[in-house]
Amino acid sequence: MNEAYSDLGYAKIDYQRKERQGIGEVIYGGSKTREQVLGILKNMQEHDSKNVLVTRISQDVADFLFNNGIEINYYPEAKIGVAFSESTGIPVGNIVVASAGTSDLAVCEEACVTAETLGNNVVRLYDVGVAGLHRLLSKVDILREARVIIVVAGMEGALASVIGGLVSCPIIAVPTSVGYGANFGGLSALLSMLNSCAAGVSVVNIDNGFGAGVLADRINKMKGLS
Amino acid sequence: MNEAYSDLGYAKIDYQRKERQGIGEVIYGGSKTREQVLGILKNMQEHDSKNVLVTRISQDVADFLFNNGIEINYYPEAKIGVAFSESTGIPVGNIVVASAGTSDLAVCEEACVTAETLGNNVVRLYDVGVAGLHRLLSKVDILREARVIIVVAGMEGALASVIGGLVSCPIIAVPTSVGYGANFGGLSALLSMLNSCAAGVSVVNIDNGFGAGVLADRINKMKGLS
Amino acid sequence: MNEAYSDLGYAKIDYQRKERQGIGEVIYGGSKTREQVLGILKNMQEHDSKNVLVTRISQDVADFLFNNGIEINYYPEAKIGVAFSESTGIPVGNIVVASAGTSDLAVCEEACVTAETLGNNVVRLYDVGVAGLHRLLSKVDILREARVIIVVAGMEGALASVIGGLVSCPIIAVPTSVGYGANFGGLSALLSMLNSCAAGVSVVNIDNGFGAGVLADRINKMKGLS
Amino acid sequence: MNEAYSDLGYAKIDYQRKERQGIGEVIYGGSKTREQVLGILKNMQEHDSKNVLVTRISQDVADFLFNNGIEINYYPEAKIGVAFSESTGIPVGNIVVASAGTSDLAVCEEACVTAETLGNNVVRLYDVGVAGLHRLLSKVDILREARVIIVVAGMEGALASVIGGLVSCPIIAVPTSVGYGANFGGLSALLSMLNSCAAGVSVVNIDNGFGAGVLADRINKMKGLS
Amino acid sequence: MNEAYSDLGYAKIDYQRKERQGIGEVIYGGSKTREQVLGILKNMQEHDSKNVLVTRISQDVADFLFNNGIEINYYPEAKIGVAFSESTGIPVGNIVVASAGTSDLAVCEEACVTAETLGNNVVRLYDVGVAGLHRLLSKVDILREARVIIVVAGMEGALASVIGGLVSCPIIAVPTSVGYGANFGGLSALLSMLNSCAAGVSVVNIDNGFGAGVLADRINKMKGLS
Amino acid sequence: MNEAYSDLGYAKIDYQRKERQGIGEVIYGGSKTREQVLGILKNMQEHDSKNVLVTRISQDVADFLFNNGIEINYYPEAKIGVAFSESTGIPVGNIVVASAGTSDLAVCEEACVTAETLGNNVVRLYDVGVAGLHRLLSKVDILREARVIIVVAGMEGALASVIGGLVSCPIIAVPTSVGYGANFGGLSALLSMLNSCAAGVSVVNIDNGFGAGVLADRINKMKGLS
Amino acid sequence: MNEAYSDLGYAKIDYQRKERQGIGEVIYGGSKTREQVLGILKNMQEHDSKNVLVTRISQDVADFLFNNGIEINYYPEAKIGVAFSESTGIPVGNIVVASAGTSDLAVCEEACVTAETLGNNVVRLYDVGVAGLHRLLSKVDILREARVIIVVAGMEGALASVIGGLVSCPIIAVPTSVGYGANFGGLSALLSMLNSCAAGVSVVNIDNGFGAGVLADRINKMKGLS
Amino acid sequence: MNEAYSDLGYAKIDYQRKERQGIGEVIYGGSKTREQVLGILKNMQEHDSKNVLVTRISQDVADFLFNNGIEINYYPEAKIGVAFSESTGIPVGNIVVASAGTSDLAVCEEACVTAETLGNNVVRLYDVGVAGLHRLLSKVDILREARVIIVVAGMEGALASVIGGLVSCPIIAVPTSVGYGANFGGLSALLSMLNSCAAGVSVVNIDNGFGAGVLADRINKMKGLS
Repeated sequence: MNEAYSDLGYAKIDYQRKERQGIGEVIYGGSKTREQVLGILKNMQEHDSKNVLVTRISQDVADFLFNNGIEINYYPEAKIGVAFSESTGIPVGNIVVASAGTSDLAVCEEACVTAETLGNNVVRLYDVGVAGLHRLLSKVDILREARVIIVVAGMEGALASVIGGLVSCPIIAVPTSVGYGANFGGLSALLSMLNSCAAGVSVVNIDNGFGAGVLADRINKMKGLS
Repeated sequence: MNEAYSDLGYAKIDYQRKERQGIGEVIYGGSKTREQVLGILKNMQEHDSKNVLVTRISQDVADFLFNNGIEINYYPEAKIGVAFSESTGIPVGNIVVASAGTSDLAVCEEACVTAETLGNNVVRLYDVGVAGLHRLLSKVDILREARVIIVVAGMEGALASVIGGLVSCPIIAVPTSVGYGANFGGLSALLSMLNSCAAGVSVVNIDNGFGAGVLADRINKMKGLS
Repeated sequence: MNEAYSDLGYAKIDYQRKERQGIGEVIYGGSKTREQVLGILKNMQEHDSKNVLVTRISQDVADFLFNNGIEINYYPEAKIGVAFSESTGIPVGNIVVASAGTSDLAVCEEACVTAETLGNNVVRLYDVGVAGLHRLLSKVDILREARVIIVVAGMEGALASVIGGLVSCPIIAVPTSVGYGANFGGLSALLSMLNSCAAGVSVVNIDNGFGAGVLADRINKMKGLS
Repeated sequence: MNEAYSDLGYAKIDYQRKERQGIGEVIYGGSKTREQVLGILKNMQEHDSKNVLVTRISQDVADFLFNNGIEINYYPEAKIGVAFSESTGIPVGNIVVASAGTSDLAVCEEACVTAETLGNNVVRLYDVGVAGLHRLLSKVDILREARVIIVVAGMEGALASVIGGLVSCPIIAVPTSVGYGANFGGLSALLSMLNSCAAGVSVVNIDNGFGAGVLADRINKMKGLS
Repeated sequence: MNEAYSDLGYAKIDYQRKERQGIGEVIYGGSKTREQVLGILKNMQEHDSKNVLVTRISQDVADFLFNNGIEINYYPEAKIGVAFSESTGIPVGNIVVASAGTSDLAVCEEACVTAETLGNNVVRLYDVGVAGLHRLLSKVDILREARVIIVVAGMEGALASVIGGLVSCPIIAVPTSVGYGANFGGLSALLSMLNSCAAGVSVVNIDNGFGAGVLADRINKMKGLS
Repeated sequence: MNEAYSDLGYAKIDYQRKERQGIGEVIYGGSKTREQVLGILKNMQEHDSKNVLVTRISQDVADFLFNNGIEINYYPEAKIGVAFSESTGIPVGNIVVASAGTSDLAVCEEACVTAETLGNNVVRLYDVGVAGLHRLLSKVDILREARVIIVVAGMEGALASVIGGLVSCPIIAVPTSVGYGANFGGLSALLSMLNSCAAGVSVVNIDNGFGAGVLADRINKMKGLS
Repeated sequence: MNEAYSDLGYAKIDYQRKERQGIGEVIYGGSKTREQVLGILKNMQEHDSKNVLVTRISQDVADFLFNNGIEINYYPEAKIGVAFSESTGIPVGNIVVASAGTSDLAVCEEACVTAETLGNNVVRLYDVGVAGLHRLLSKVDILREARVIIVVAGMEGALASVIGGLVSCPIIAVPTSVGYGANFGGLSALLSMLNSCAAGVSVVNIDNGFGAGVLADRINKMKGLS
Repeated sequence: MNEAYSDLGYAKIDYQRKERQGIGEVIYGGSKTREQVLGILKNMQEHDSKNVLVTRISQDVADFLFNNGIEINYYPEAKIGVAFSESTGIPVGNIVVASAGTSDLAVCEEACVTAETLGNNVVRLYDVGVAGLHRLLSKVDILREARVIIVVAGMEGALASVIGGLVSCPIIAVPTSVGYGANFGGLSALLSMLNSCAAGVSVVNIDNGFGAGVLADRINKMKGLS
């Protein structure tokens, strides 16, 4: 059972990924049929995979998988399922997930559940957008204790720059498609974050809470310089 | 001398504008030849126009106009000339012009000189970008005393939202083309400001310090409700 | 009950906003679940909030809120609910809301209801687009009496420039996404308004009637220069 | 001498075009070397071509052509040369070329010189932009007498819609790249004109005064219905 | 009954348009409620309007109007209703509507029905796209007899240029949103047509068959030069 | 029965295409009504057409055609129907279709079924995206044996460049619209593939598996140099 | 001398490329300093490389290389230098390079010189744009004899579709940045070509004559099916 | 000397930044006059600042600063000056900077010099683009030893995804504006990197080597989990 990958025809499941990249294969459910997802999970079950993330699936798909013999926990706000759960021990480190508004909740939770499933300690700091700066400033201590911060914001995306000016840890900015009109599906927040005048900020794809969670995991678990 | 406009062929000079719109005809020098600008000013001189703004001209053009008999004061940082100056009395009200960085200076000064020429009192608050929030927060008193604030910012344009959350007066946001890469000639700041989550913020064209100055003049000089 | 904000986890409700910004917290309903909206309103009810605007909600959501004990008036054309209504006294000043066509009605009404709820006197001037200029010109008196004008237009957005050339008060232009083909979701009107050759015009986000209403409120209520 | 075209290797000169399309081959000088332009003109000289338009050339190129034996009249504002001039008789019909501002002069003149060279009567109506509507309205008679109107405008391009609402003849709108910031090289005027709410308006490429002139010629010279 | 317009509050119906622009008021149904359309038609009925075009409506809306007492003929392919029909006499002139493919039918028919309702003779020439040039070349006679040609094409929009090279009459190009992928909602055909190397081509908005029909009507009915 | 085309009014069916272009007329079903598709197929049936591809149709449309007397095989993953099948003999040559992920399956199959229907031998190599390079590298032999490779990828489209660096045959890159956020409907993969630093790569439209299949057929069947 | 690559620090020269990809390493001169180009060529000289293409260099750079001991032939129209020339024998096959206008010459020649240096027989067919279709139709024989056709066109790029409908060989379309206004640096031709309704057309990057030449070489030299 | 910032009017120099953010104030020279840069440095000299980075300046500006009494080391490839150098001790950790091609050198060096000035150990791995995969694969050991990798690539930006699939450390992707045509000033690489299918990749602004260097410094110096 230590082949490099399994070939299902429509998918080649990569069993070296954990070794090579620190986390196992993840299933992006957003553009697969439920049958394809099931097929991949059945194969991973046979390979004894643990804590497999299935992102961007609905409750319906999660139910379908469960009814077909996949042990899976579904997080409806994050739209993530975690199959074949196994304890990863006490959560480590300190990842803060900050959001500008209530509307960005789904993307935030995608990041949180991803990071938590990978064994990280996550602190949620929601609805601290810059239009009410005192809400943010009252939480500076929490921000300064973080090892890495994920900033989730739609509309003008200013929160990344403001937090970027307050702390010295790495910041991962996640633009969201929340908004209307000239936000053009998240373009406004994306460009805003890419042009951040604050140092230490980098950006992932629009609505990509999962990618932010994985990257935060890597940074949070960095070993010290010897 | 109270005709509605003069017709120079290449230009029709509008002599009802002051009455209709509060300020006299302004010359956008950015896409006219120096001879056209001179011709228009000569005509206005004959009509006894005062405090005529000529925007987006170089020192060279200003010198050319002066050498051809136009009494003109040139403001090099703003790239504005003011022809046929006449005192407008003691500056009134309180317009604050805030900028995110040193690089936005030219646009700021275009706004300031425009507003000052129209008789307004202007307070400059430069380089208070959000990456060093304490610089801005130490000036909140100045912001809260303003009747109207012009916020000039390039790159991610976050300053408009942050100031928008701190005050209750109208805010005019001016995106600038300062930056590189994914700012796409000012698009990032423009979209960011249009999507501002703070109330009371409206936006003018990229680099349009002049337009901001004129609008600020109108708001600053509002009469009280009777 | 004078804490700075309440923390509901998914939302931090800002109770200093009225003091800081002139109007109380507003709920953008466009991307919240009905349960989140209800939760926020329940909390505001406990804090004795009055005249709370809930924007971009359907009749269904309004009914849901009402059936759960929120006293709310719903304006179907504006898609706005006003919770916990309380008289703001006799409407003051004079805000004109002008629109280019019948199709822009929803955005117009969002601006009108917002401004009216905040206590302003609002005059509606609908369907005065530039293709039938006599309709507009017959109303110049109304335009010239305004303290501030909101111009709502989709398609080519020319109305903002034309009105901008006729009056001397501040103009807030609201591009709408009405149209098809090369209007690209409101981009054509947005760019047109940003490039307006008329002075005194500034722009808010596409379809942002609410933002225009709040800004008009601030300008309309300006005190006179002392 | 009645071959269909001449083949110079780098160019195939179309000698059936006049018959097929009403006007002879035209040389777009904007991306050809001066040697290529000369070679083409020499060939046309041998074929006895008359009134050949050479667009987008500088005075320098015109001088070079003249010094190499090409009889050419150069119109510096239009940047057009007309080679091998021959009288086309009394100008016919009535084409009005209206422009929003002085800055659009070059594009206007490209249209005017093109139409005049083809034998049309052209009336110039410059600087009648919508910010000073009385300038335009005082000329409505001239507009209503036109058989076809070319409207040249940069920035927000509103002039096409306003004129479109005043007349019943065909209107050719020419967006120009004049402006700055969010005009994005003429995009704002282009989109504005394409979305015109006025009937009877069609659009040519940004800065394409030549194309407008040729199309106006065709419409102006339409025969009556028998 | 000769007022300049009727004011319904949500709409101002322009009763001078016919005089000013040659055709009466037209109702763009695409963004109006069925009640608004009915209200406008009832008012026009009282003013004895004839041949009123109602564009972009479904069969359902047409039925609703009919059931509420509006005499209306519905053209399902064109999605146009014509209310209060009255004979316009024998169709005049010669407008050819050419299309690149079967898929552009709806836009073609919008142009055809518009032009026919206005009293023009229309020749349909469908599915003559450039990928099978012989189909087009076999119809050159029809093209050369036209007084004006409407070319409707999606995807790469090449048909406008090819026809533009074959004829000497004015050509109105209508880009359509038909296609997928990098056609970006009609952008590819729009840009292609604007950049046409053929003379005499102008462009209307994407999918704007109605606008093309009105403009073709004006050109087709041009009087001869006296 | 050797006319150049049949004219159905809404369609002109090209019966010279096979001779001129190597393959017969193909029906793009994506924007035709089922009745139009049926009408075209009935006409082709009368002309004894064979192996007619009908692309982008649903199972429902295929059933409708079958129930109306068209002998048709439907490939649900490719969304292609093949009408009037006839053996094309033993598949020739070697076309490899490689895909980056499971999600691109539909576009891949459109390419495969097209190429197979035209008589080519096709090898499928799915889910070999660059994030697990060993999966791709283990298949280099298959890639190097191809006469032409179709690379199908969404998101960042890197696979085309990587394969382009490994082989010496022509590569046809097909960007897909699979992804979210800043992929903007396939734009990211499209631009990525157009900018490929590897030689020998050309690109077809987003999701255009059919076009890739036809082009691959032409290249695969190239005759040798004599 | 059979190492896989040489490492110059700023460049790693790939000496397996010829074996892997059919042609040797090529130097893209467009964004390298002349010293870098020289350093790479010196290294290749030591490795006995032959017929090394250096693209996008000026005459000045070519002279600099020559004066520093590099034997190089410079093609000014193509802006290509060929270093260390060696006969590749009698040109083989038949590649036609067709262009829409004289202005596309530089891109055409980049394709031609690339293909010729690689040993192919190239036929130039310039200035056969669709506005004068008879020029193109008179050359159909030449087009039908080609094994592969490169179509170079700016502006609306219609030539690719028209030729695509006339022949059965593979077509490589090269959009050029020639044009102005709404061609947006080649975007119009690019989108047009990607959306071509003709089969067998694929596209390379804007102005990428080199890439087209390399791909044409591969297709032209295809071996026959055994 | 422990004030929060100095106010030069045109700039407010932030003396708390080091404490707050780990690195001192940096001067973005790209849009400041040389006099402004000098003024800021003089002020920082008085505050005893050390190792001040001045980015995007030319040799000329560096010479001007030196001649005016600023001790500065200039790195011409990186276009960075470092003023008031002071040893930061033995470089720590391991940052790899990998680039796709020679042409990206300037951006790479901006990242390298930034990171080195901040005291990090940097390994350069240039010209390992995916078109010659063996060059990259021969360096996998170096990549796997890195604590953080900066990937610099223009054109299609595929290198970030490929490296992302090979390692488990954080990756910072820097798109560059190198390229032509459809790279649209770096947009192609930017979108490609944002859509990377590999985990652990985040992106900074186009050409922003400085930002990547600062973020890499933060990650490289992470302390271990206690």
